[in-house]
Amino acid sequence: MQALNPTTPSGNPATASEATALAAAAPGWSCSERPPSLFRRFEFASYAQTRAFLDRLAELQESSGVTAQNINFGRTYVNVTLSAMGAALSPAEYALAAELGRLATA
Amino acid sequence: MQALNPTTPSGNPATASEATALAAAAPGWSCSERPPSLFRRFEFASYAQTRAFLDRLAELQESSGVTAQNINFGRTYVNVTLSAMGAALSPAEYALAAELGRLATA
Repeated sequence: MQALNPTTPSGNPATASEATALAAAAPGWSCSERPPSLFRRFEFASYAQTRAFLDRLAELQESSGVTAQNINFGRTYVNVTLSAMGAALSPAEYALAAELGRLATA
Repeated sequence: MQALNPTTPSGNPATASEATALAAAAPGWSCSERPPSLFRRFEFASYAQTRAFLDRLAELQESSGVTAQNINFGRTYVNVTLSAMGAALSPAEYALAAELGRLATA
C-alpha cells in the first residue's frame, strides 16, 4: 500500500508507527505531508528571549546536523520549519523538534 | 503636497529628498510604501557564512537600536525586512540597511 508518508531507504525515514511515536514526543508541532515537514511558532515576551532561543537553536542545529529548512523571526516570535532531507521525516528531525519544544518552555 | 512617503514628527522620518539620498547609500534594497519598509535578500555560499551574517546582524541590531521587522532564513539565504517604526522610514533604518549591504560584500 502506498502510504501518505512515502519512504525510501536513502532518507533513513521513520516508519508510520515510528512517526506517530516520534510526533507524540514533539507536541505542538504541525506536520505536513507535501513536502514532509514540521512547523511550529514560538512566541516570547521579549527580544532578548527570542535571541536566546535563536542562539540555542543554532547550537542544536550544529550539534545535531539537522538544519531547519526555514526560520522566520521577528522581535518576539520564531517560526521554525523542519523539512525532511530524504523522502520522509527521520528521527533526527523529530528529535530536534522535541528539543526545541523543551527549550522554549524551559 | 502630500508625498507618497508620508511623514509625521513622531517617527523622525526622512524627508523625500533625504530618503532619496539615503536609499542611494543602501543599494540593493527594494523599498515599499505601504507599510514603509526596506527588503533585501542576501545569498551565501555556505551555512557558516549565513550564520556569520546573522550573528553580525544581531550585533548591529543591538548597537543601532533598530530591530528588523522580519528575518527569514534558510541554510544559504537571509531575507531581511526593515520597517518604519513611525509613519516613514528614518535615517536609522537606512543606515542599518547600508551597513548590512557592506557586511554581505565584505
